[in-house]
Order: sequence, then C-alpha cells, then structure tokens
Amino acid sequence: MSTISEERIRNGVDTATLFATLDAVKAQPELGTFQFRATNQWIDGAHNRTTIKDFYAAGGEDSSRAEPFELDAGAPAILIGTDTGPNPAEYLPHTLAACLTPSLVYVTAARKVNLTRVESRVEGDMDVRGALGLSGDVRNGFEQIRISFVVEGDAPPEKLRELVERAKARSAVYDMVTNGVPVHVGVEA
Amino acid sequence: MSTISEERIRNGVDTATLFATLDAVKAQPELGTFQFRATNQWIDGAHNRTTIKDFYAAGGEDSSRAEPFELDAGAPAILIGTDTGPNPAEYLPHTLAACLTPSLVYVTAARKVNLTRVESRVEGDMDVRGALGLSGDVRNGFEQIRISFVVEGDAPPEKLRELVERAKARSAVYDMVTNGVPVHVGVEA
Repeated sequence: MSTISEERIRNGVDTATLFATLDAVKAQPELGTFQFRATNQWIDGAHNRTTIKDFYAAGGEDSSRAEPFELDAGAPAILIGTDTGPNPAEYLPHTLAACLTPSLVYVTAARKVNLTRVESRVEGDMDVRGALGLSGDVRNGFEQIRISFVVEGDAPPEKLRELVERAKARSAVYDMVTNGVPVHVGVEA
Repeated sequence: MSTISEERIRNGVDTATLFATLDAVKAQPELGTFQFRATNQWIDGAHNRTTIKDFYAAGGEDSSRAEPFELDAGAPAILIGTDTGPNPAEYLPHTLAACLTPSLVYVTAARKVNLTRVESRVEGDMDVRGALGLSGDVRNGFEQIRISFVVEGDAPPEKLRELVERAKARSAVYDMVTNGVPVHVGVEA
C-alpha cells in the first residue's frame, strides 16, 4: 500500500489529482478562467494591510477558505517608515520565488523526480533616485533581479537544471515579472 | 507646538525626514543604490516559506531589523495545494497595492494634502491553461490587472486623482509590473 501512496503523492503533490485537473481543463477549457484578488487598506504612513480571501476558479466563486489571509506591508526607517512589514520591493522578490518553487515542485512530481531540497535567494538592484523622483535616467523599479536556486533530488544535476527551465516556462509570476502586465488604475475620489 | 508637529508629520510621514532624505540623495547620488532580498525554502507540495531581513541601502548593509519577516505561500485545494498561505498570483496584486498606496501617501504628504482614507481592490484575470501547459495561445500570468482606489482627503476630487497619477509615476512595483524586469535564474544542482 505504501508504494501506491508514494507514487500518488510525490513531493507533497497529489499527482492523481494533478493529472485529473489537467484532463478536466483540457476537456472544458472554460474551467481555466480564474480571477485572483486582493483588497488593501492604508493604516498610517507607509503601513498598509492587504486582505486576501475569495477568488474565482473553474466556473465559480471559491468558498474553501474559512478565514482570510492578512499581510502587513511597510517601509524601513531609511525609507521613512516604521518597518511594519516587508516593503513592496521585498514582497516582489518573495512572490517570484514563491511561484517558481511550486512550479518546480509540480513539474518534478509529474515527471516522477523526488526532490529533497529547494532553496532560493533573490536579489533586486534598485537605484531609488527613480522612485524618489530625483532622476529621469533611472527606472523606479529593479534594474535586474537575480534568483539562485539550490536543488537536490534523485535525478542527475543536468536533469534538475532542465526541470528548473520547465518551471520558468510554466510560472505565472516569472511571466508577469519578466514580460509585464497591462494595469488599469481607477480612482473614486 | 501641535501645529509644528502636525505640519511635520503628515499622513503618518515625517516630511522633514523625507525632504532631508531627498536632499541627501540629490547631493550624493551613490546613496540611491539599494538592493532588496528574499530567501525562500520549499516545505512540501506548494507550501514554501520566505525569509526577509537584510538589505543594502544608502552606502551600507542595513541593520535596523532585529527579527526577520516570514511569509508562507501555498496553493488552494483547486490548485492541488493545502492553502498554507496566499498563492503567488495573490501575492502579486497585494504587492502592487502595497506599493501604490504608500507612494500616494508620501506624494500627498509632500504636497500638504491630508488623507483620511485610501482603500483599493485589485483583480487579475488569468487563464490557467497557460501555466498548466495546456495552451500555447494564452500567457501564464494575468492578461490584465485592474486596481480601483477609493481616496478621501482635504483636497478636491480632481486633485486627489492627479495625486494618484503621481503615485503611479513614482511607484517601483507599478513600474516593474507594467514594464517587466530582466530576471536571471541560476541553479546549483
């Protein structure tokens, strides 16, 4: 029995459910329509708080979450804040790693590779003269982001590196951060 | 005395320190060089955890944080996870709002407008067939992001809307999400 279970659950991913989900969306493409959401409230100074709960998925509103997630953001003292949470230029590198890692985990589970370790470090270089409005020559955001992975598992190093390439090719956030997304900003004032 | 204090601290922002910071970076542009970081560790399945603490700012390593911030990420059941945290496609909208809001707060503080309310809701539309590898015609990430603000303060509505435009023009994350950033991925396997 343990063999069946080990084969079905790989890297913590229920691969039978994963393949069933792929089949379902393949058969009914409209099930692929999702909408994710966040609401944010200003508290004071740089301090603001996001609430995340509902989303639309696979033909209906999701109701699986009993409680919302709450995320505090802020700015450190050097950016005139009181460090009430990570600053958005730290949330962005987090978000990239938090997407590439499960992409890698799902890709490896589907390909029957067992992972024992996935760690990453992300760095983003920013000349804050852009965001401070002191220079028109530098952008507001990062000039470059570097993410370095340490990956261990029961496949040869070249196979693990190839699987990271596949994870990049499937990651929603890697796509958005590298290619950009149209953003519409509306204001009720 | 309360008048001086009220003028200096506006919307929770110490404007004297803000202007002193602007002057310092204007005088010594190399102080604008920052680097933000995140380290991420895979836990199991879609569950992963990011640690955020140190960063480089204004000519040196910052040491103001006694403790790191920790962020858990995950996936809901419909994405084969156990909802151990917001999913990355929810962290991204959060990050956008968490940057535009303090941008607006700083811009208004510098222009002597007192805010009483800033709230926003972000929505991102995704056809998950892209990230699932089921269609080459749809992208992995959001097709579009919409963020709608409710802003109240002691300025006319058209002034508040103009200040949101200035916040957009200064926001690091708005720049990155709309324009994209070069990302280098390294793997040690």
